[in-house]
Amino acid sequence: MSTFIAELLGTMILILLGDGVVANVCLSKTKGNNSGWIVITTGWALAVAIPVFIFGTISGAHFNPAVTLGMAAIGKLPWAQVAPYIIAQMIGAILGACLVYLAFLPHFKEETNAANILGTFATGPAIRSTVGNFLTEFIATFCLLFFILGIANTPMADGISPIAVGMVIWVIGLTLGGPTGYAINPARDLGPRIAHAFLPIPNKGSSDWGYAWIPVVAPICGGVVACLTYAAIF
Amino acid sequence: MSTFIAELLGTMILILLGDGVVANVCLSKTKGNNSGWIVITTGWALAVAIPVFIFGTISGAHFNPAVTLGMAAIGKLPWAQVAPYIIAQMIGAILGACLVYLAFLPHFKEETNAANILGTFATGPAIRSTVGNFLTEFIATFCLLFFILGIANTPMADGISPIAVGMVIWVIGLTLGGPTGYAINPARDLGPRIAHAFLPIPNKGSSDWGYAWIPVVAPICGGVVACLTYAAIF
Amino acid sequence: MSTFIAELLGTMILILLGDGVVANVCLSKTKGNNSGWIVITTGWALAVAIPVFIFGTISGAHFNPAVTLGMAAIGKLPWAQVAPYIIAQMIGAILGACLVYLAFLPHFKEETNAANILGTFATGPAIRSTVGNFLTEFIATFCLLFFILGIANTPMADGISPIAVGMVIWVIGLTLGGPTGYAINPARDLGPRIAHAFLPIPNKGSSDWGYAWIPVVAPICGGVVACLTYAAIF
Amino acid sequence: MSTFIAELLGTMILILLGDGVVANVCLSKTKGNNSGWIVITTGWALAVAIPVFIFGTISGAHFNPAVTLGMAAIGKLPWAQVAPYIIAQMIGAILGACLVYLAFLPHFKEETNAANILGTFATGPAIRSTVGNFLTEFIATFCLLFFILGIANTPMADGISPIAVGMVIWVIGLTLGGPTGYAINPARDLGPRIAHAFLPIPNKGSSDWGYAWIPVVAPICGGVVACLTYAAIF
Repeated sequence: MSTFIAELLGTMILILLGDGVVANVCLSKTKGNNSGWIVITTGWALAVAIPVFIFGTISGAHFNPAVTLGMAAIGKLPWAQVAPYIIAQMIGAILGACLVYLAFLPHFKEETNAANILGTFATGPAIRSTVGNFLTEFIATFCLLFFILGIANTPMADGISPIAVGMVIWVIGLTLGGPTGYAINPARDLGPRIAHAFLPIPNKGSSDWGYAWIPVVAPICGGVVACLTYAAIF
Repeated sequence: MSTFIAELLGTMILILLGDGVVANVCLSKTKGNNSGWIVITTGWALAVAIPVFIFGTISGAHFNPAVTLGMAAIGKLPWAQVAPYIIAQMIGAILGACLVYLAFLPHFKEETNAANILGTFATGPAIRSTVGNFLTEFIATFCLLFFILGIANTPMADGISPIAVGMVIWVIGLTLGGPTGYAINPARDLGPRIAHAFLPIPNKGSSDWGYAWIPVVAPICGGVVACLTYAAIF
Repeated sequence: MSTFIAELLGTMILILLGDGVVANVCLSKTKGNNSGWIVITTGWALAVAIPVFIFGTISGAHFNPAVTLGMAAIGKLPWAQVAPYIIAQMIGAILGACLVYLAFLPHFKEETNAANILGTFATGPAIRSTVGNFLTEFIATFCLLFFILGIANTPMADGISPIAVGMVIWVIGLTLGGPTGYAINPARDLGPRIAHAFLPIPNKGSSDWGYAWIPVVAPICGGVVACLTYAAIF
Repeated sequence: MSTFIAELLGTMILILLGDGVVANVCLSKTKGNNSGWIVITTGWALAVAIPVFIFGTISGAHFNPAVTLGMAAIGKLPWAQVAPYIIAQMIGAILGACLVYLAFLPHFKEETNAANILGTFATGPAIRSTVGNFLTEFIATFCLLFFILGIANTPMADGISPIAVGMVIWVIGLTLGGPTGYAINPARDLGPRIAHAFLPIPNKGSSDWGYAWIPVVAPICGGVVACLTYAAIF
């Protein structure tokens, strides 16, 4: 299988499951409605761990332009691969968001709260603050890349690495996810936001394009700086 | 041990534990009453992982006609085995539901809400919609089979595979379980529904046979399509 | 180290942590007050897994007369060892309960609800019913022993077994723990109940000796029958 | 990499994540606000496990003066290393607390409850009692060191040890964390308390220096006694 297909399918699964847990918690009348932050964060952790199990040995399981650019910055991925990786991730993210729409069809039809609908697709800040939101996403994505490189550097028995990656996503969500909803991945935020813009959802409101640049730029900056820092230290 | 006994006992344990966690959360006066989606989904994840530990090497630990038919569709199980596997799963599921009844006897006697009683046995939709509910179960079971095949394809140290299977059930419940209660297994839904119909529970209502075909047909379709897709890609 | 000391210390730790989590959730003013069934069951699961890590290779990590008697019944422990094992477990359980008292001293002094105080030490039924409560403890302890034997029979990489044992305790609590609080261990219930009787807690009420035989006899019956069943099947 | 840098960075990450989860749960308007003890304890468990993955083989991953002094007391660390280890831990803890401040900047600006602000940085007792609080921290840190030594003594496949350490932190928080908020680490409490004193947070109140000695002295006593006890027994 090509790395392109692996990144596309892996990111699609990541968004189907990850945005799926937000839909389950936020959209009204679901059985998981209002079940809290532990459900959101456990769902997202496993949403990343599962495709790492399946596609890890094929493409390295980036599923995230911040990972791809960070790896390229320290010579762990040829620069020529960066564009195809990111295109695959974006296509996968948009497709994954469409699958969430299909999996929660009756709930999207009945939902009347536009904020809940957008929240199912893309992240948004708890308190709107350009500097504050940028800092949070920068620090959280710095952690993501620094931890992933540290884990890749640690000997592990077969099958433990994807679990450790899931633990990384889990802890970032639990601890640093509160102010911005932890995008920490430009494709995770921008892909579903595009899907939100074109999908025929009755009561959807604005796609909040004014905020959209932060979960794209801050994770890329944080991820690249983390990779350079890690390479400098170790 | 024969594969027949392994599938029967494994499915019986799966239903005892899985329907048990629903009983614990839904039936009134239990110590786990109203303890939320994280309890439901963690319970179901482990309800599958534990019998996979015990019976995995004997029968492959299907416990699910959608798995059995999917494996047969891609040549991983002889077609002659399909009928005995499914019969064992159905017997096990009915017996497991009877054990749940025994384990929660005083609570079934005092429960007055018919929906809670049926919910302990079989799944039901949060919003009734033939197309929507079918789609949800199709997508969720597609994920189940696709993920299981991916995990089976990944080298793992002894004892990690059943944990990874538990993670698959965990994530499907957390993320896609909200609209229909994630049957993703015809035996899991139909077996306990039959038990619901014949067990002498004081205030039980209808067994909702009108919905019963969806958690049978949609998982089979989703599971078989997932196996064919996986085989085509990898 | 002798198996006697291992069983004593292991059971002491198990009760310190396990009754500790109940104290944390039930006693008023703690930071974990009213934090729900997921906290109770995760705490108990780890309360067993940790001493299994530490003492597993020394004594087999029974910490439970139902395990000890079940193992003896199928020839996996010499009968001469049964009495010292159970005595060590009982001493450890009483000491562990005393440590919980010390760790939560200010909270025991201020607690005014006698049911919460007793609940920190010993189990009690959600709905009092001799037949029903016996059945629940019998089925839950049958599961405990059947699952433990199944796991012991499965090849696992170093360090996975204690995690799998923790998963067994986790799932039993989540799914079958609701009606009786899952004693599934005579020492776990009787030892702390004795401590409850003699510790100088201001507002404690009765130690509910009328119920005390059920979490002793039912787990022993369930555990021994499970071991004989497992040995007959496998 | 020097052990000094490893201890500094590891403790910094531990506090960023650990105090981060408290900020997420306690500060108003975050997405994890009021999400409960399961979020706090899972966050802290992973906040320790992740840097153990990354720095475990370099410095032994103490991140805690009670661990460092305990190891020195039983000859597992040269006494000459104790001061540099503790200095690195204190610097790391203060830096980690500053990063939490940056990651939650808009929330610290809007928070009006001084207790929530201090609680994000340092621990405090649920019921103030010198003897009781000291006992709780002593017992909890005794457990920490005793369990860690037991786990270090157990053969584990690559990558399992950090998970087991995370389980130790998880269980201590779930079960014994209720009365004092489980500092169990002088650097974890004192470092962020110092940061609380100098950071420009609008509505912060007192840093509660009257309590500050307990989470320093009790963990050191409990940790050293645990190491001596473990060495005497095994």
